[in-house]
Amino acid sequence: MPPHLMTLADLSPRQIYGILRHASYLRNSSLQCLPPRSLAQNRKIQENAPQRKVKGPAKSLQDMSIALLFSKRSTRTRVSAETAAGLLGGQALFLGKDDIQLGVNESARDTARVLSGMCQGIFARVGDHSEIEEIMKYSEVPVLNALSSLWHPTQTLADMLTILDQKEFFYQNEDRSRQFRPITISYVGDSANVLHDMLVTYPRMGMKMRVASPPNYRAPQPVWDRVVELGCDKNILWTADPLEAVNGADIVVTDTWISMGQEHEAAQRYKDFAGYQVTEALCKEGGANPDWKFLHCLPRKKQEVDDDVFYGKRSLVFPEADNRKWTIMALFDLMFGKWSLLEHDPKAPKAPKPQELE
Amino acid sequence: MPPHLMTLADLSPRQIYGILRHASYLRNSSLQCLPPRSLAQNRKIQENAPQRKVKGPAKSLQDMSIALLFSKRSTRTRVSAETAAGLLGGQALFLGKDDIQLGVNESARDTARVLSGMCQGIFARVGDHSEIEEIMKYSEVPVLNALSSLWHPTQTLADMLTILDQKEFFYQNEDRSRQFRPITISYVGDSANVLHDMLVTYPRMGMKMRVASPPNYRAPQPVWDRVVELGCDKNILWTADPLEAVNGADIVVTDTWISMGQEHEAAQRYKDFAGYQVTEALCKEGGANPDWKFLHCLPRKKQEVDDDVFYGKRSLVFPEADNRKWTIMALFDLMFGKWSLLEHDPKAPKAPKPQELE
Amino acid sequence: MPPHLMTLADLSPRQIYGILRHASYLRNSSLQCLPPRSLAQNRKIQENAPQRKVKGPAKSLQDMSIALLFSKRSTRTRVSAETAAGLLGGQALFLGKDDIQLGVNESARDTARVLSGMCQGIFARVGDHSEIEEIMKYSEVPVLNALSSLWHPTQTLADMLTILDQKEFFYQNEDRSRQFRPITISYVGDSANVLHDMLVTYPRMGMKMRVASPPNYRAPQPVWDRVVELGCDKNILWTADPLEAVNGADIVVTDTWISMGQEHEAAQRYKDFAGYQVTEALCKEGGANPDWKFLHCLPRKKQEVDDDVFYGKRSLVFPEADNRKWTIMALFDLMFGKWSLLEHDPKAPKAPKPQELE
Repeated sequence: MPPHLMTLADLSPRQIYGILRHASYLRNSSLQCLPPRSLAQNRKIQENAPQRKVKGPAKSLQDMSIALLFSKRSTRTRVSAETAAGLLGGQALFLGKDDIQLGVNESARDTARVLSGMCQGIFARVGDHSEIEEIMKYSEVPVLNALSSLWHPTQTLADMLTILDQKEFFYQNEDRSRQFRPITISYVGDSANVLHDMLVTYPRMGMKMRVASPPNYRAPQPVWDRVVELGCDKNILWTADPLEAVNGADIVVTDTWISMGQEHEAAQRYKDFAGYQVTEALCKEGGANPDWKFLHCLPRKKQEVDDDVFYGKRSLVFPEADNRKWTIMALFDLMFGKWSLLEHDPKAPKAPKPQELE
Repeated sequence: MPPHLMTLADLSPRQIYGILRHASYLRNSSLQCLPPRSLAQNRKIQENAPQRKVKGPAKSLQDMSIALLFSKRSTRTRVSAETAAGLLGGQALFLGKDDIQLGVNESARDTARVLSGMCQGIFARVGDHSEIEEIMKYSEVPVLNALSSLWHPTQTLADMLTILDQKEFFYQNEDRSRQFRPITISYVGDSANVLHDMLVTYPRMGMKMRVASPPNYRAPQPVWDRVVELGCDKNILWTADPLEAVNGADIVVTDTWISMGQEHEAAQRYKDFAGYQVTEALCKEGGANPDWKFLHCLPRKKQEVDDDVFYGKRSLVFPEADNRKWTIMALFDLMFGKWSLLEHDPKAPKAPKPQELE
Repeated sequence: MPPHLMTLADLSPRQIYGILRHASYLRNSSLQCLPPRSLAQNRKIQENAPQRKVKGPAKSLQDMSIALLFSKRSTRTRVSAETAAGLLGGQALFLGKDDIQLGVNESARDTARVLSGMCQGIFARVGDHSEIEEIMKYSEVPVLNALSSLWHPTQTLADMLTILDQKEFFYQNEDRSRQFRPITISYVGDSANVLHDMLVTYPRMGMKMRVASPPNYRAPQPVWDRVVELGCDKNILWTADPLEAVNGADIVVTDTWISMGQEHEAAQRYKDFAGYQVTEALCKEGGANPDWKFLHCLPRKKQEVDDDVFYGKRSLVFPEADNRKWTIMALFDLMFGKWSLLEHDPKAPKAPKPQELE
């Protein structure tokens, strides 16, 4: 079996820390070989590396091709994947819904087998969750879930890297590795794939979660089963009240209320999510930590979060988007280049057991 | 005139053997530099090349761009082309029907001239056959036919490489080159482009063909003219009866009954092809060789072949799909990289003349 | 601020000459490392560089990714950009209108910021002109206008390189640099983006312009303001009469009468442009220079220019198309690779002031 990745629920906290450490390493070595981006970033890079042309990361995907099997529109995930593959010396093939036979003329099984005979990895954002399961079953090369109806592991990894970039949110160990403080993450919005990977991950990394979602918007049973199986439910508070959810929040997260394909439910959804917009006022009234930060996976609509928060000082949304690239690059390197995703990084910290937290 | 390739009818048996030998060489050298794919393949590769990072094939497309002019959906042809170009150090540009002006705002003539000023090769899967003729006429760089309404040369090359991978189907010459045994290829289905390149090729390589197609489904006159001109008709039996076609078959081949663009004829076609599904029962009753193998160019529908055959031990369909890549890579290398398609490989065997066969 | 480029109006004549010199250098060094294209070209290249494998241009985009943000169909601009990026060692990402969230789910502002965190340059052909302004405002990497409703700088650069390839149209300075003679450029057709960059550029390079466009088809005010601000209006004659426009013409230029998105105005436009077709007869009657040459940015329709002119000896349209690649490559190199677009090439000639001309 090649090392597939469906959800972070399949990885131990130590494996997750290993990926984050690797993403951080790839980011540093890549930025040093790239030209100025923003003046601020550039200044920082040039202090450490005065001469421009330093060597970037090892070309672990040299001569390799990665199939990007995308049946849905995508900006961040796609551009991250293509640029990450390029930096690793590989080639990414964007196969959109109008380009190939999958789902029109050909089964997921046959497509998976064919692509895995020509490519060295598959990054798939397909329709129903069963389709990615089928692809993993029949592919002969590693498959990374780029988004399914149930899970979105690469988003949660980018969020964690963004959190570990903020000095108030981590401990530094003696070996300079970073470990999450027991902070509180509040999620206010629709219980969808973006949330699901948080639910099975943050509590295991030592963080607490507080989720506000309307009564009819609950994580589906297969997701909740994994939450319980991993013991994460003990550190998740679930409520329908956004004010209760943001109480004590160090980080407030939201996402679109209307995912692609749900446009016909828009009217009902706007009604159900009334009062869920993330604003300064909401977080103040609810009692968030005064220095709370804001995350959003983008694209963003104003209903979910107002301009003051979204473009303001609390917002980490654009560094979060940048980190999509570096975390996806880490997974491409470990999964497709080295087939070593499941090995343990000896320097990665072990996470506390959830029960140690409270 | 650059070395274009419209159909295998334009090549001698010796030139065809040269391409197949080159494809086999490129496959071996590429697989040695790529990471594990399937455990079985990997085991074989690692026996021969214990250290992982060996050098792949020469980068003959370095600094070059190949235009993939595709006005139809494609999985195998496209992914083969993109990954093959990448392995040869080149860049493939997928230009789909919604991307460029061809056929909407611009003639094939102008598009051909413009692309050949910017790219070093054109791989074209366009609409009517006249369009690829026009492109070849006006391009200043080599043009490879990726599929036209009349011909599909790259598919037949992949099929031949797959046949030459089976030890029961070839002689090994003293210099270790492989030559087809006088086996029988049975084709059961629609007389379309996939069949046409077989008709002008297999008899010249020393093989016999038996074709079952309903009475109204005959090869168009321009194709049959080439069949006769090359003396291939003497070794082709044409019938409307699938049972007669599979008699003595070493290999049974079929293809979709409803090609892209023929969806409106579906009802009539299902009626006309009743009884044409390839099954164990059909081949047994018809008297196929007990060890018959199965080929299909994919994508596949169940009407044409049942699951038992398609996913069973006789099926070579997935190695056949893999070989699309290596044969297309050989053509890219010889046509676009070296401009040497029409030169003779001194080690390629000469094929017997058709009349020597019976 | 990264070095963006919206229109040639933002560059001095000397900067423009610098880009053209650089494009010419990149063309020569690239063609020497590429395989035969046409026999004529090949003969010329091989005289100068007998051995085939010479080194191409420096890989200034090594490890870099350029986002091609294209919301409109494109052949020349897109293929130029992809192949130019490849020759410079970089990766181009074609992001079509169906691929990403821009304009559907996401603002230009957010898209610009996200892409500039993952890519090292943006080449944008978007909808309304305000969109490219927004992208330039928020991008942290250089943005090159690939076509807006107002401007089309890369087309005018390619046209100028094509003119400088014709020995009757330039002076050669002592240092072998080329400078435009005070020739007359006649434009017969719709006043659109392609014309606008000519209006703000040719007079400053020492050339005269004569424009025929029907009464209701005038350059929009923001364009004309730049024309006046740069003193270009003194060397532009504007008329509704094609015969008057081609009088004394050294070069006659036209473009489509119906740009993408104007299809519903077709009937009115055909009426308004009656008599505007470029033909031998028109130019003879109008009194063009007997050796007049023809330019068209393509794709071309017969209404604008007949076959005799378009495919005849006066036509420079295909070398002009080829030069799209080399001029775009020069901009990619200077803008994205070196961030040095605005620096002065010490060898570039200074252009005469417009008032010196007459």
